[in-house]
Amino acid sequence: MPTQDDIRAAAERIAPHIRRTPVITIPPSETGLENPLVLKLEQLQVTGSFKPRGAFNRMLSAKVPPAGVVAASGGNHGLAVAHAAKVLKVRAEIFVPEITPEAKRARIAATGATLTVGGAAYDEARRASEARAAETGALLVHAYDQEEVLAGQGTVAMEFEADAPDLTHVAVAAGGGGLYGGMASWYRDRATLVIVEPEECPTLFLAGMMKQPVDVPSGGIAADSLGAKRAGALAFAIMMDHGGRCVMLQDDAIRDAQRWLWNRLRVVAEPGGATALAAVLSGSFAAPKGARIGVVVCGANCDPGSVTA
Amino acid sequence: MPTQDDIRAAAERIAPHIRRTPVITIPPSETGLENPLVLKLEQLQVTGSFKPRGAFNRMLSAKVPPAGVVAASGGNHGLAVAHAAKVLKVRAEIFVPEITPEAKRARIAATGATLTVGGAAYDEARRASEARAAETGALLVHAYDQEEVLAGQGTVAMEFEADAPDLTHVAVAAGGGGLYGGMASWYRDRATLVIVEPEECPTLFLAGMMKQPVDVPSGGIAADSLGAKRAGALAFAIMMDHGGRCVMLQDDAIRDAQRWLWNRLRVVAEPGGATALAAVLSGSFAAPKGARIGVVVCGANCDPGSVTA
Ligand SMILES: Cc1ncc(COP(=O)(O)O)c(C=O)c1O
Ligand SMILES: Cc1ncc(COP(=O)(O)O)c(C=O)c1O
Repeated sequence: MPTQDDIRAAAERIAPHIRRTPVITIPPSETGLENPLVLKLEQLQVTGSFKPRGAFNRMLSAKVPPAGVVAASGGNHGLAVAHAAKVLKVRAEIFVPEITPEAKRARIAATGATLTVGGAAYDEARRASEARAAETGALLVHAYDQEEVLAGQGTVAMEFEADAPDLTHVAVAAGGGGLYGGMASWYRDRATLVIVEPEECPTLFLAGMMKQPVDVPSGGIAADSLGAKRAGALAFAIMMDHGGRCVMLQDDAIRDAQRWLWNRLRVVAEPGGATALAAVLSGSFAAPKGARIGVVVCGANCDPGSVTA
Repeated sequence: MPTQDDIRAAAERIAPHIRRTPVITIPPSETGLENPLVLKLEQLQVTGSFKPRGAFNRMLSAKVPPAGVVAASGGNHGLAVAHAAKVLKVRAEIFVPEITPEAKRARIAATGATLTVGGAAYDEARRASEARAAETGALLVHAYDQEEVLAGQGTVAMEFEADAPDLTHVAVAAGGGGLYGGMASWYRDRATLVIVEPEECPTLFLAGMMKQPVDVPSGGIAADSLGAKRAGALAFAIMMDHGGRCVMLQDDAIRDAQRWLWNRLRVVAEPGGATALAAVLSGSFAAPKGARIGVVVCGANCDPGSVTA
């Protein structure tokens, strides 16, 4: 589990490459909540998701060999690694599954990275990426299960706390749990992390039930961002030690949150990017009395027209 | 011309109804500018444009008669007035021309306001609205040529200066010039306002050339937000006294800025909302050495899919 100092060091390391994303406050009259809701608009990050925070931190913490870097991804992590590789002038090979939408594939290819599409879901891409890294000696940049990746994602929390210091609950979407794990490492006991997952991608929820990461089915509209096969070992350990609340959602609630973001705020978010908010708006996360809630809007790599569909 | 105190009073008056919109800083590596570019994301405002600032300020400064309020608009001002009327529980009649897109009409109608569509462009709607106000005694809420409206729009500048105090130039789109006039009233000589207009809607540019507001043709892709028939008397007077730079743009540059906002920042802006940025990105505003530029992104009432078209 990264320390606060690890996260501060990550923030310094990645600062030249990362945007400080803003927050916006929505009054109770628009949400029905007891207190104002604070959204961190992390979909405005470079590459359209929070993922470059972890990718840059991993790549700037290691010596990248001549073979460059390899990553597997539903799309956003791959795009982040491909972008970082371009900026840092190293080679990148990115593996994505067939469910990765064109909006993500095209952006990855446009960086100049080598893109390989194969397998039904993230896990097949992960296996291909690990085999390839073993073969070439490239640096593997994991989507969610490396300390440096968590420390990078933890900078989201560091910024969020600086801009909205009094939150009691912070909702984040989870796939493998790198974002959750990094943010929980920052907040420790100063806020409760609300881990939000689609029912069709219940990695951390089932890991919590089974007391260990287990393989889960992954499907539904957010599978290209939240569809890890199982929770990361790091995120699982953090969840066991530090708790947090798990909330499960149906895809309809995610679509509703996407529409709300567009209609109320003119924000476009992909399904995984709107998932944490969906937990709050749908009431699936039943906030305790007095809760002051923050939400990370974390990705927008979709066709913008899709949010009104 | 509103004073700084008028604008501070407006800010206090409208605060319960308005979002404090965030800024985001884009580094020189992404823009080719000498210094970081600061964007104020005012399209995240309630109703999707800056217009409720002026509308609420006007409506909260006057006694609204039983007949309610009347406004004419290309769409955004009408939506702001309709929204404010709903919140303040007064009647609203909104007049828009035929060029007003469905995305705007539908949102106006959804507030419960009476919507009348007629005439080719904004000016016909303006005439109809004035006749109607004379008939019913309703309060006219002008889109850009009333002191209270300017004071309301000036709060954009008050916030922007608080969040980005060292800007030397602030680019804003102009139709009738209410946003420009309000912001210039705040900044006075502390920053140079860059007034950006499409070549097809050159209200302030031609008023400057002719030394008085004159009727101009209005067309092109931003006509539903920037297509006033002539500059407002207030904005014209402010421009004559305080200067500012006028920049004219072709529609292609506006489309490019819309695409840039989506591809680089995952921000959706309508043509008028991206026009100020277009002046900076296209180089049409040739910034002097050392300039630190701010831009107001000011509207997003469009079909979100249209930004990648
Ligand atoms: C938009 C978005 N949100 C959330 C996540 C989940 O991140 P993690 O795997 O770190 O839990 C991802 C992962 O790709 C993502 O792209
Ligand atoms: C998005 C947008 N930008 C700019 C303007 C121009 O405002 P003004 O008429 O105050 O110059 C408008 C007016 O409707 C608008 O809707």
